[in-house]
Amino acid sequence: MDLALELARKAVENGDVPIGAVIVYDGLKEDSPMGRLCKEKGIQAGQILGSGFNQRNLLGNALRHAEILAIEEACKKIGDWRLEDCTLYVNLEPCPMCAGAILQARIPRLQMAIRNPKAGFCGSVMNILQMKELNHRVEIREGLEAEEARALLQGFFVKLRLKEE
Amino acid sequence: MDLALELARKAVENGDVPIGAVIVYDGLKEDSPMGRLCKEKGIQAGQILGSGFNQRNLLGNALRHAEILAIEEACKKIGDWRLEDCTLYVNLEPCPMCAGAILQARIPRLQMAIRNPKAGFCGSVMNILQMKELNHRVEIREGLEAEEARALLQGFFVKLRLKEE
Repeated sequence: MDLALELARKAVENGDVPIGAVIVYDGLKEDSPMGRLCKEKGIQAGQILGSGFNQRNLLGNALRHAEILAIEEACKKIGDWRLEDCTLYVNLEPCPMCAGAILQARIPRLQMAIRNPKAGFCGSVMNILQMKELNHRVEIREGLEAEEARALLQGFFVKLRLKEE
Repeated sequence: MDLALELARKAVENGDVPIGAVIVYDGLKEDSPMGRLCKEKGIQAGQILGSGFNQRNLLGNALRHAEILAIEEACKKIGDWRLEDCTLYVNLEPCPMCAGAILQARIPRLQMAIRNPKAGFCGSVMNILQMKELNHRVEIREGLEAEEARALLQGFFVKLRLKEE
């Protein structure tokens, strides 16, 4: 989560909302397809597979959220679209698109620092990561480095408001 | 929708589920930021801004759905992340990730040929495109070339099952 916060700070430099995401290989299912791919490539448990920070404004692209960039990098690194044995760390609760991407990539674990009451789809507005109707469910933990995450996001929005006034 | 179906057929060649998407500039809000950008670039109403077909298997990337690729191309073409004056055509109801991407890109209109009862998030499992809790809502139409879309998808899955047996 430290690295996610460090990445989030990079987003601020481009005027983007400070969100950073990191995907770590957990190495809990060594006999799974992902486990075998990681073994082949010499990737160890605890190693970072992908990371990203929000670049929506920087790139003029609605889809360049931190989580999406991290998932893309991780898929590229292991050479498969199934990330069945990893944890995604992010400093803010994912939006519908990113929550959907977590489902698509079959990521089993999510660690989020704080909630997004207005647009979070992992427990706030809705929780699409744990629906009985869908064929994939995600374990969610929250609160890791929550204070730092809150200070970073609040600081960003206060500055933005001052700028607009 | 014809072009979406044509693109969907390309996906089959790579063993991907046949889904194609096309984004068309509607030109209904010429004084909007998107309208001004299109005028600057000489883009006319009815012109295609982006298109894509499902490339999940081909690229080993969970996020390379048809709608995502079409949105990325359209954002690139107009140079902004807000696609506020266009219609996205797709032959199958979008999944949570793609529905979320439609929200993120502020796309106002969706035309889908047929529903996806198992994973569609635009009316089937859930409808996240018309939630009062969110700050963007999408007009949805369905049924355009539904028969052809159904035949294409059913044909793909029948062949897949025969192959597996």
